[in-house]
Amino acid sequence: MKIKMRERVLSSNDAWARENKAFLTERNIRMLNLIGSPGAGKTCLLEKTIDLLGERIALGIIEGDLATAKDADRIRKKGVPVYQINTGSGCHLNARSVHKAMRELCTDTPINLIVVENVGNLVCPAEFDLGEDAKVAVLSVTEGDDKVEKYPLLFTKVSVLLITKMALLRHTNFNLTTVRKAFRKLNRMAPLFSMDSLSGRGFSPWMEYLNAAVQREDSK
Amino acid sequence: MKIKMRERVLSSNDAWARENKAFLTERNIRMLNLIGSPGAGKTCLLEKTIDLLGERIALGIIEGDLATAKDADRIRKKGVPVYQINTGSGCHLNARSVHKAMRELCTDTPINLIVVENVGNLVCPAEFDLGEDAKVAVLSVTEGDDKVEKYPLLFTKVSVLLITKMALLRHTNFNLTTVRKAFRKLNRMAPLFSMDSLSGRGFSPWMEYLNAAVQREDSK
Repeated sequence: MKIKMRERVLSSNDAWARENKAFLTERNIRMLNLIGSPGAGKTCLLEKTIDLLGERIALGIIEGDLATAKDADRIRKKGVPVYQINTGSGCHLNARSVHKAMRELCTDTPINLIVVENVGNLVCPAEFDLGEDAKVAVLSVTEGDDKVEKYPLLFTKVSVLLITKMALLRHTNFNLTTVRKAFRKLNRMAPLFSMDSLSGRGFSPWMEYLNAAVQREDSK
Repeated sequence: MKIKMRERVLSSNDAWARENKAFLTERNIRMLNLIGSPGAGKTCLLEKTIDLLGERIALGIIEGDLATAKDADRIRKKGVPVYQINTGSGCHLNARSVHKAMRELCTDTPINLIVVENVGNLVCPAEFDLGEDAKVAVLSVTEGDDKVEKYPLLFTKVSVLLITKMALLRHTNFNLTTVRKAFRKLNRMAPLFSMDSLSGRGFSPWMEYLNAAVQREDSK
């Protein structure tokens, strides 16, 4: 019975995800779903990304947190449209709440890229599609190099893996080669970019990825 | 209906948690439930704790992970009885699986303290009681000092807060006073210990806490 319920929750979510996909396709908007542990550096990554994007992309952000609007406040300071979802005790965003958020975001402003920062969690967000074009995993070097193997579900599903906090690498025993090998066992296609969000070092491939994603024409 | 289902899952879990509590009380065993993000340093904390405990406490460990037995292997190397639970896609341990684990652990060895290392997750494990005597939160300085406010559920419920990776403090903008203040708004009683698991610095209060917990007589 537990399994049936689970299936029902997931299938209702999938219906909303399809709605979202249709909404985005109609308006030629790309959407990324950013997933990582609490403190992996997701908001910091967004802040640096905004600085480097300049005017090239009309960005909108959806922030998911259990409580507070701290992350939305940080994004708003950068002058980017943002919508904060508070999930209460909810451990992931669902497609329905994101639907409301994307409608709000797109009401006043022309947007061509939405980045959803999911609730900090390596497990549950991987199971709930939001209608996004790509899932992006964020893993910081301070979390350790065993996380890809220990949380395989997410790393199998992502289209990009971002390794963050590279400036701290020399203070840890994180081995980038170990992570790369473990990741390739689960995911043969997704690029892996390593970077540092405070200095901006290593951001070029990620910025190119975003530009390419937005410029890609729909194959209608 | 979703809420009813949730209640049913939680109440079935609570029944098992009561079983666990009875099992532990009967044998005069204490149990701690260690909760923190992926990469907060839970296993590393356990390794150093084992080194410092020596023969004073008969410890047993239950490891919870989605996949792999990496953490159990690390504990086993230290010569401590350990039981690995793999949850598959499950984002937290439940009382039933822990019941099986504690029975196995206690079959051959006399044990007076069980530490459960929950799945790396700041959200879901906080909702599922395992029959433990205390929940212990593990938060690393590299995760940022906003996490107590952003994930209030866990920090309200814990009996101890351990701040880990203190050796990395100077490389971050983590402010211990900010965390202490935020924590005291949610939780007036639980002690907060800051420590570094590689060097063992700051471990004394935590070791005293463990010794006191085990020596406390049941008030039968």
